[in-house]
Amino acid sequence: MKKWIVVIIGIMLFNSVSAENGYDLWLRYKVTDNAVLLQQYRQQITGINCTCSDGKLLAAQQELQQGLTGLLGKNVPLQKLVTNGTVMLGTPAQLPFIKKSVGENTLTGLGDEGYLIRSIRHEGKNIILITGNKEAGILYGAFHFLRLLQMQQPIAQLNISSTPAIKLRLLNHWDNLNRTVERGYAGGSIWDWQRLPGYRDQRYYDYARANASIGINGTVLTNVNANAMILTEPWLQKVAALAAIFRQYNIKVYLTARFSAPVEIGNLKTADPLNEEVRKWWKDKADEIYSIIPDFGGFLVKANSEGQPGPQNYQRTHADGANMLADAVAPHNGIVMWRAFVYSNESPEDRFKQAYNEFKPLDGQFRKNVLVQVKNGPIDFQPREPFHPLFGAMPQTPLMMEYQLTQEYMGFATHLVYEAPLFTEVLNADTHTKPNGSTVAQIIDGTADGHSLSGMAGVSNIGSDINWTGHPFGQANWYTLGRLAWNPALTPAQIANEWIRQTFTNKKAFVDTVQQMMLASREIMVNYMTPLGLHHIMGYGHHYGPAPWYNKAPRADWNPVYFHRADSTGIGFNRTASGSNALAQYQPAVRRQYENIATCPEELLLWFHHVPWDHKMKSGKTLWEEMCEKYYRGVDSVRWMQRSWSRLKNYIDEERFKQIEQLLGIQEQEAVWWRNACLLYFQTFSGKPIPAKYEKPDRTLEYYMELNFPYAPH
Amino acid sequence: MKKWIVVIIGIMLFNSVSAENGYDLWLRYKVTDNAVLLQQYRQQITGINCTCSDGKLLAAQQELQQGLTGLLGKNVPLQKLVTNGTVMLGTPAQLPFIKKSVGENTLTGLGDEGYLIRSIRHEGKNIILITGNKEAGILYGAFHFLRLLQMQQPIAQLNISSTPAIKLRLLNHWDNLNRTVERGYAGGSIWDWQRLPGYRDQRYYDYARANASIGINGTVLTNVNANAMILTEPWLQKVAALAAIFRQYNIKVYLTARFSAPVEIGNLKTADPLNEEVRKWWKDKADEIYSIIPDFGGFLVKANSEGQPGPQNYQRTHADGANMLADAVAPHNGIVMWRAFVYSNESPEDRFKQAYNEFKPLDGQFRKNVLVQVKNGPIDFQPREPFHPLFGAMPQTPLMMEYQLTQEYMGFATHLVYEAPLFTEVLNADTHTKPNGSTVAQIIDGTADGHSLSGMAGVSNIGSDINWTGHPFGQANWYTLGRLAWNPALTPAQIANEWIRQTFTNKKAFVDTVQQMMLASREIMVNYMTPLGLHHIMGYGHHYGPAPWYNKAPRADWNPVYFHRADSTGIGFNRTASGSNALAQYQPAVRRQYENIATCPEELLLWFHHVPWDHKMKSGKTLWEEMCEKYYRGVDSVRWMQRSWSRLKNYIDEERFKQIEQLLGIQEQEAVWWRNACLLYFQTFSGKPIPAKYEKPDRTLEYYMELNFPYAPH
Repeated sequence: MKKWIVVIIGIMLFNSVSAENGYDLWLRYKVTDNAVLLQQYRQQITGINCTCSDGKLLAAQQELQQGLTGLLGKNVPLQKLVTNGTVMLGTPAQLPFIKKSVGENTLTGLGDEGYLIRSIRHEGKNIILITGNKEAGILYGAFHFLRLLQMQQPIAQLNISSTPAIKLRLLNHWDNLNRTVERGYAGGSIWDWQRLPGYRDQRYYDYARANASIGINGTVLTNVNANAMILTEPWLQKVAALAAIFRQYNIKVYLTARFSAPVEIGNLKTADPLNEEVRKWWKDKADEIYSIIPDFGGFLVKANSEGQPGPQNYQRTHADGANMLADAVAPHNGIVMWRAFVYSNESPEDRFKQAYNEFKPLDGQFRKNVLVQVKNGPIDFQPREPFHPLFGAMPQTPLMMEYQLTQEYMGFATHLVYEAPLFTEVLNADTHTKPNGSTVAQIIDGTADGHSLSGMAGVSNIGSDINWTGHPFGQANWYTLGRLAWNPALTPAQIANEWIRQTFTNKKAFVDTVQQMMLASREIMVNYMTPLGLHHIMGYGHHYGPAPWYNKAPRADWNPVYFHRADSTGIGFNRTASGSNALAQYQPAVRRQYENIATCPEELLLWFHHVPWDHKMKSGKTLWEEMCEKYYRGVDSVRWMQRSWSRLKNYIDEERFKQIEQLLGIQEQEAVWWRNACLLYFQTFSGKPIPAKYEKPDRTLEYYMELNFPYAPH
Repeated sequence: MKKWIVVIIGIMLFNSVSAENGYDLWLRYKVTDNAVLLQQYRQQITGINCTCSDGKLLAAQQELQQGLTGLLGKNVPLQKLVTNGTVMLGTPAQLPFIKKSVGENTLTGLGDEGYLIRSIRHEGKNIILITGNKEAGILYGAFHFLRLLQMQQPIAQLNISSTPAIKLRLLNHWDNLNRTVERGYAGGSIWDWQRLPGYRDQRYYDYARANASIGINGTVLTNVNANAMILTEPWLQKVAALAAIFRQYNIKVYLTARFSAPVEIGNLKTADPLNEEVRKWWKDKADEIYSIIPDFGGFLVKANSEGQPGPQNYQRTHADGANMLADAVAPHNGIVMWRAFVYSNESPEDRFKQAYNEFKPLDGQFRKNVLVQVKNGPIDFQPREPFHPLFGAMPQTPLMMEYQLTQEYMGFATHLVYEAPLFTEVLNADTHTKPNGSTVAQIIDGTADGHSLSGMAGVSNIGSDINWTGHPFGQANWYTLGRLAWNPALTPAQIANEWIRQTFTNKKAFVDTVQQMMLASREIMVNYMTPLGLHHIMGYGHHYGPAPWYNKAPRADWNPVYFHRADSTGIGFNRTASGSNALAQYQPAVRRQYENIATCPEELLLWFHHVPWDHKMKSGKTLWEEMCEKYYRGVDSVRWMQRSWSRLKNYIDEERFKQIEQLLGIQEQEAVWWRNACLLYFQTFSGKPIPAKYEKPDRTLEYYMELNFPYAPH
């Protein structure tokens, strides 16, 4: 007998040394490594009671069983009868005692997706009840309960209720039908279209589990630069196979609609949204889609922007286009998300202003099932942007937030950049469009203007790399999108804390250090890339690395020089009344703050002002000195992250430790590249020296200007 | 204490249920599941003795420790002193006792890569010695030893020696610099060029381990449709990072050389191989490469074929081109692999004949460090081809075999096709170029003509999918390439047996069933795709699915109709003297057999003859009836594979079981598609009915002809 024990211990030990490759994301379900707590959990949780045979409830039960079995390191059985420690799942309709036990008001407040987790006494036993009006809520509750254990929280006296603040919580995949991903830095697309619908990859299930665990309830499978082919029957069958998997995790699929599809796949002569044949074609297409995918979510559309066709090709408005599609899906309860990211090739107008100019006049003209999807800032997912002036400017239209998780302008999948501070900075910005509270969060969640439809989307950073996001910390940005869409009031620190504990370890020294790194990381990137309000000075096309000198793009506003406007007198884009007057698109309270160089936050300074090189900053330094200081501080801070990380070697698995160590190494090199290239270039305008206290750039401006990256992902 | 045991058993059980995703390939190292054998192994293996601190010996020691620890389910320590059961690693130079113990002759016979595994008595202990003249041999020996345990073989009295028959055992990656893979069906490229050299993915190490375990000692990283950029300094630094990882696994890196590189990246006006400036450019480039990668292997070149530039652009021969590159790398002991896969756009000559016509006259003109790389058959990796007539026709030139692992013409990563029977069928073919033995294997391994340089390459089927090859059984084809290149005398059954036991389980019922499926699978595919010598009737461009009707390609020999030549009188390509006379390229003994319709193997019939529809086959059926029979048998056999597989559910993990079950489902559908489309199409020529005993095609020919796959991988 003793021999067997040794054998078993041996096997156990040597199975557990296997490296972690990041595939499991934040759903690792390792045995609780606090012995006291483990003992408690085992007493507090003895089994699962659930009368479920399919759908979301079955998914919840399976996840709970898998998760608890892992976390408790013992079998957690399904129970027909409750005992002390039973985790019980069910809706009030299934379990009539719940209404009495919990109260009708409480249940009403949960809506369709909310949940309740309560320690209660039932049939003389102490049980843990996870309930919700609909099965979806119970699924979310199960994940919440698992998170408590993953974070080693007490579960003795639970009384938790939660409902999502935002209705549509979506990923936008910019994935093409040939399995490439636009702005993808983590390998190819996870959608293996060639082998769908027959081959249902395990990744689809794990993708759905991960999304459900953070409350994401929809996914747009295809690129906004759209391909009409996806709307043809063989492809819809592929989509249906994914939808069938995602359905049990409360995730709806959406597709991008190519506006010219009636011409391209429908053999019509026009795609004019007011043409009856066109309208019928879309109606029929919608009917066909819903016959194949009964719970299809709807369409996301990029129209009349960057070469995409749209209603303006036929002298119609964005509202005409959106409403035609909205009418087609309305009978099936579908919705249309119409992107506000439009700017015209012909117009010489400041690109900052164009979306507002196009869309604000259309407020009130959209159908009830249309949302206008607005990027967080007016240009394009820069390291820092002021909030988009459309927020608050279209009170009759539900505006949906579009964030970019994939780090197109933030170091690809190579730089450690935690995006939550960027996201919440925008959410917390006050648009001043209402007297009593009109933050962007309040616009987005529908409360400011009383919209029941609301949404938040993140452009996915997911690819075929084993760890999903290329950079292990990219997972945190995916995680953030889900959690913030559920509850926009969560702080970056709260979200980081959750993610670190589940993804790595609960050990305090590790959690504290990594949380500090994450919270600082976005400002660090701003400093070494685009401090003081600089923006869009990345390499042309691929956006890899610095190229503030670039001026050869076929349109003015694709050139960095368009955005920074450096000359011998100073630097920055004058968007005050004496310049493009983009500031007029904000409410007076906002505009006044930004248009006055004395009150404009210095972090946004060059977004709005062309500032003399010797302008005195709050620090007492000149603008040029301050710029040098920011760039150098950015690099120094990356080195601080490297030192911090190097101390954490013994807390986690070697594989992920080394991955991040190596990536920080590249980030340091690229931060130096950014700093040197930008300062050497801007110096040609400022004519001032880089202060002697700093390390000298070890390459010339010419060296940096000649670098060339034809195969950078884009 | 008892409680802890329960805890431990619990943890163990619930850690071990984790699904297998295929990432570990045939190197799973699970605990031996035969209790008696496990007990024996534990007594027979007690530790590892190795005086090694780096390089290949360290890799061998690490692999042994990891593998044995897994297989024995206990720690296998490193030992300074030997005990009974020590596994001892070292060269005769390190361990002088070996020469006496083993004998000098035996050691000499091992060469540079061979190894010896012996149970010996040393210092009064029973130990297992793994030795070789060079560290590389010990690395291979270590993997052989691990394989014995993985296959649950006895290890009590070991006396194994092995040396590779072929010197260059290579993978050819058709991977592009933008991370796409030509003819790749398993996701994108595993080479993450964007993040190299700074980020060294764990996959690179596991790729090297897998290759070393089967004896592969070289890898061509880049596509034969080449990009000169890879030869520039920043990219060579990326290559060097891979080379540094692969070096310790005895794997050299090679690159494809774009012939026009001197013009494209060298600013020269010409790439004429006899131009002195061009020759100097390549010499300097080689010197640069070797300064960065001291053990660089050399170049693979596709020239003057399918649009690639080459020496003929300058009215020079393939020998002129190859020799120029050979001279450049010769001082560094580099080699050049020059592909014979050439066919001219202008020539109306039967494509079958063109490589032979171009290359045979050049025999004797190549430098000593040039190999000519010849595809197994004269056309292009078809399900079945006769052996390439160049084999045996260039006795003064080392000819290297090129197989295609990736299933361009064999169902992509969707069809279960074990390629070993295809590979060995060619190896075993007798070219009749020598009186006493001149099989293709003897040509390839250099014995027929006394070449010391020899090579075998496989076009890689590896991609970024978690399981590397898309289809779990694609791994078997990668495995086969390595094992056959080491020992071309291995049979498909032996290789399949090894692979199944290591990849899945040693359980007899499983091994027997799967081995049967694998051995039958290639002929099954031939039957439902291209029976009786049909070839190259796949979809245009992507080669997905059947398109025997296709006749719109810009060159004749890209059209299926060029190859099958069906008309009302019959079907097949007359390559006898009354036709293209390609048969004249074979030796008389071969030619005579093939040119006589009575002696031509029926499996090659339509390769060489245009055969009347009512030609009487050996079965007594007409050609048309036989063709029907083959196509229907192909589909039936896929269904047999499905039934066979369905019985194996309880033998392996659910994840891989389901993957294969689903893929067989698609294979069945696509086999029906092939059968119906081809028979309905050929029926338009034969004018005969499909015999009534068969299930009727449920679609029309028009339906199949209208199918269209613009996004199929290609």
